[in-house]
Amino acid sequence: VSVVCVLGAGRMGTAICTPLLDNGHEIRLVGTHLDGAYIGAMRSNGVHPGLLHALPPGATYHEVGELPEAMNGADAVLIGVSSAGIAWAAQALAGLIKPGTPLLFITKGLEWDGSELRIEPDAFLDGIPEPVRSTLKPVGVTGPCIAGELIRRVDTCVAFASRDKAAREQWAGMAANSYYNVWPSADVVGCEAASALKNSFSIATGFAAGRLEAQGAAAGGSAEISGVAAHNYEAAVFAESVVEMGGLVQLMGGRLETVNGLVGIGDLNVTAHARSARFGRLLGRGLSVDEAVEQMAGATLEGLAAIRTVGRALAAWDARGRTKPGQFPLMRHLVEVAGGARVNVPFGSFFGDQA
Amino acid sequence: VSVVCVLGAGRMGTAICTPLLDNGHEIRLVGTHLDGAYIGAMRSNGVHPGLLHALPPGATYHEVGELPEAMNGADAVLIGVSSAGIAWAAQALAGLIKPGTPLLFITKGLEWDGSELRIEPDAFLDGIPEPVRSTLKPVGVTGPCIAGELIRRVDTCVAFASRDKAAREQWAGMAANSYYNVWPSADVVGCEAASALKNSFSIATGFAAGRLEAQGAAAGGSAEISGVAAHNYEAAVFAESVVEMGGLVQLMGGRLETVNGLVGIGDLNVTAHARSARFGRLLGRGLSVDEAVEQMAGATLEGLAAIRTVGRALAAWDARGRTKPGQFPLMRHLVEVAGGARVNVPFGSFFGDQA
Repeated sequence: VSVVCVLGAGRMGTAICTPLLDNGHEIRLVGTHLDGAYIGAMRSNGVHPGLLHALPPGATYHEVGELPEAMNGADAVLIGVSSAGIAWAAQALAGLIKPGTPLLFITKGLEWDGSELRIEPDAFLDGIPEPVRSTLKPVGVTGPCIAGELIRRVDTCVAFASRDKAAREQWAGMAANSYYNVWPSADVVGCEAASALKNSFSIATGFAAGRLEAQGAAAGGSAEISGVAAHNYEAAVFAESVVEMGGLVQLMGGRLETVNGLVGIGDLNVTAHARSARFGRLLGRGLSVDEAVEQMAGATLEGLAAIRTVGRALAAWDARGRTKPGQFPLMRHLVEVAGGARVNVPFGSFFGDQA
Repeated sequence: VSVVCVLGAGRMGTAICTPLLDNGHEIRLVGTHLDGAYIGAMRSNGVHPGLLHALPPGATYHEVGELPEAMNGADAVLIGVSSAGIAWAAQALAGLIKPGTPLLFITKGLEWDGSELRIEPDAFLDGIPEPVRSTLKPVGVTGPCIAGELIRRVDTCVAFASRDKAAREQWAGMAANSYYNVWPSADVVGCEAASALKNSFSIATGFAAGRLEAQGAAAGGSAEISGVAAHNYEAAVFAESVVEMGGLVQLMGGRLETVNGLVGIGDLNVTAHARSARFGRLLGRGLSVDEAVEQMAGATLEGLAAIRTVGRALAAWDARGRTKPGQFPLMRHLVEVAGGARVNVPFGSFFGDQA
């Protein structure tokens, strides 16, 4: 039984405490400066306002200023901030984290360092000074998991990825139980990159629904034309997304098998129900990226950020011959759309010579 | 411009005439003895009763007894019957089809010959006597395509698979246009096997919705518990389905890349909206296979037939060491469910050692 300090009380940071608590661990859930209302609500009645559900007993709730006390005596740390908060989280924890502390990550994103795309756990470690940095063996939680389902104990399958075998197996042992199935994975680059990229590609899988809404509106009708949807369009985009995720992950040094399994395909499937797909639906309806961002009312759009990051990488890689302009037609279209172009999916460029 | 005789006026047999007609070909659409009502309706007002939509001009409609006249002068033949009708179709056409006639197949299914699983185009050819048989080069239509969308010209991507390069390219040239994107594929076994298997696995992807309905009913509530679905459960089943489709297709001699692209992943994605997923939903709710079949009111369940066929293959392959009992845990569970067992997805057996 461990004492786990969780930094970030958003939906996923909170939901993942459920299996840890059910397994008998003690949780100290610390909100960021953005999570004050969540912490206040959970302190008063236990219910997370974003999840409309309470955690099991065994958790205490803390404002961001109480992080030093929450870290005092903690055996393990879980990073639950958004990708925009990674540098802040490293700074906040740098003086508090002890050498060798087990470290679990739920943050998803990509960073462009001017030459290569990097994954979030590595970006976090950049902010931790030596001699502690090299003693930390971060483990990333990847795979299909909607927070509102995990807190309600819906059967869930995920992968815990780390270069360090002992680290990934330790966290898997702490978290896994009858409803939370955990596979340790050595392919940390593949798992983290696929998890970040799926947020981008799920924007594209949302296009079909929006395009149909626009056609229905143009015809003066309802969202669906004669009760018929655009699943053919969506399925082709879904399949091309998996193919391009595979190519990008391999360019970053990850494994194709990771994309073609739980972490890639499974997570892209579940993300069809998440906000990036709703954002894509707005774009498919014909809104510009600025109009669509405005309609999302301040929601964090990590998929959009990742599109722009990959766009920078592709431009640099094209210039040095690492990629060719004909590769990744869907991601390149997403980059154009993120830059202001209207949606016009290039189906004819998909799948290379043989589907 | 060709004269195409289409045998089978079901939804897909009819819908695929749309791009052929838009490309200027002449269609003679011949119903089977099951399609009499469809032919009658299309003759009277053009609208297909299952699709609620009419074909473009250029088609004539024929009862099954008029097949000889419809075949007279036809340049090409399209087989649009269900898998149960393949032997009948071969018999009906055996005396009518000329050597070397281009032949397109939309039928999906698997046949067990006591030693190996076989694909439908090969089973069809068994029913055509020599010397014609060896002159026919069948081409299979595979990939994600809902008929009601194709007839309404929703963007659609498919693969035309044949061992014969000229044959697949000829049909692709006849059918492809601005909304119907066609990739020729040489991997006929991979394309046909994935297309048949996806009907089986989509029964499993339907379990999640039914399980949730059952829980809601048990709690005295509505179909969804607190507005939360079981997408995590569904996504894990979807991912394992793709992994197992890949393994089975490779055992049959097909390519893994075919599964991990448009034909496998794309088609499994779209089939989540088709009747096999609705059938799986009934099973997930707790109904036995017999109860669920009864509720489907006579719908053709090719996915259930394919489960039973694969079950026979796995039993035989296990006995001779070609497969191991620990492989394909989801398909084996489907075989149990088809035999009367209740749904209880073995998540812990999924994904092997590394997800």
